[in-house]
Amino acid sequence: MTDTWLATLITDTPQAGFELAITLSRRGVKYTQPDTEVLKRLRPEYAEDAKALTAASQVVAINFQTIAAANNYWRK
Amino acid sequence: MTDTWLATLITDTPQAGFELAITLSRRGVKYTQPDTEVLKRLRPEYAEDAKALTAASQVVAINFQTIAAANNYWRK
Amino acid sequence: MTDTWLATLITDTPQAGFELAITLSRRGVKYTQPDTEVLKRLRPEYAEDAKALTAASQVVAINFQTIAAANNYWRK
Amino acid sequence: MTDTWLATLITDTPQAGFELAITLSRRGVKYTQPDTEVLKRLRPEYAEDAKALTAASQVVAINFQTIAAANNYWRK
Amino acid sequence: MTDTWLATLITDTPQAGFELAITLSRRGVKYTQPDTEVLKRLRPEYAEDAKALTAASQVVAINFQTIAAANNYWRK
Amino acid sequence: MTDTWLATLITDTPQAGFELAITLSRRGVKYTQPDTEVLKRLRPEYAEDAKALTAASQVVAINFQTIAAANNYWRK
Repeated sequence: MTDTWLATLITDTPQAGFELAITLSRRGVKYTQPDTEVLKRLRPEYAEDAKALTAASQVVAINFQTIAAANNYWRK
Repeated sequence: MTDTWLATLITDTPQAGFELAITLSRRGVKYTQPDTEVLKRLRPEYAEDAKALTAASQVVAINFQTIAAANNYWRK
Repeated sequence: MTDTWLATLITDTPQAGFELAITLSRRGVKYTQPDTEVLKRLRPEYAEDAKALTAASQVVAINFQTIAAANNYWRK
Repeated sequence: MTDTWLATLITDTPQAGFELAITLSRRGVKYTQPDTEVLKRLRPEYAEDAKALTAASQVVAINFQTIAAANNYWRK
Repeated sequence: MTDTWLATLITDTPQAGFELAITLSRRGVKYTQPDTEVLKRLRPEYAEDAKALTAASQVVAINFQTIAAANNYWRK
Repeated sequence: MTDTWLATLITDTPQAGFELAITLSRRGVKYTQPDTEVLKRLRPEYAEDAKALTAASQVVAINFQTIAAANNYWRK
């Protein structure tokens, strides 16, 4: 992939950091399966399965650890 | 999502931090599946499956790591 | 939940910290499934399944990381 | 459990630390299923399943992170 | 393996770090299954399974934690 | 086990550290299933299953976190 999608881990707020964690999690999928059509086809199966949703939330949690540390936990 | 739901990682007590970890875990699910009706439909299947409950507890544990570090472990 | 069950992450010994990690892991389950009757019903299925037991031990390990860090690893 | 089995996280060598990580992993199982007879019965199923063995190795890896940090990575 | 494929964890940008995390994740697979033909055969099954893609994204997230810390989160 | 197989976490290069992470991951399996014959028998099932390979790569990633921290990320 040649586009720039991740220039910094720094965000203004924890919520923006959480949303960046979601972006990282999706990019992790996209590097393995770059075909958007396949990803769209898999989506219903995925988004209606309780265990798959928990697994997705776990990847977000791991990426959020990284981003929160990068932002020094947005401490004032 | 345009509402603000995560303004800070700082909480008064470890227990409030644990409850925030639960909020983060649920939000991680909701970003993938925003349809509340679908989530309600999945809930029974989910909340009565021992492995799914353990997986949910694991996501909470990972998010609690982040929040506990943010709060410097609520050390006095 | 309105009762106070987590006032501090600090414990006197590593073993007490490990036991607190177990408490956190169980609470993570209980926030998702607060019905004690359901949890009791799920228990046999759970406690006699090797993979479920390993998964439970993993959640404890993650929570123990947090508690051990909070206690500065009980170094003298 | 009233016996003392975890008095310190400090070990002389990395290898002793790895072995302590195994002890922690097994204790995590034992707190959920204290019945030794059940654990013995589950063992063959468990120890001959490639995925279960990998899952066990993962719990050890997580506990080893904690113990290695406690020992400041046994740096001289 | 005798070739050098990992000389440093330092990268210029977070995105290059994320891509290095993907390399590490693939190498972790390749050390267990070095036969490229087998890996190619497994790929379709893998890249079209929602849970397998999430699992892959999780390994990337864990490796990205390591690389982000190594780079001090690319803070200026 | 009475042989010494882990005398230090310090390695000269990141790649040697990654290879040590693989050793730790295999040892984690071997402590649970010391019988080499069983491990050999399980191998084909294991090394030709995409999810099992990802799970193995995840354990390596966790152990690599530990080793990379021990080596202060091989920063110059």
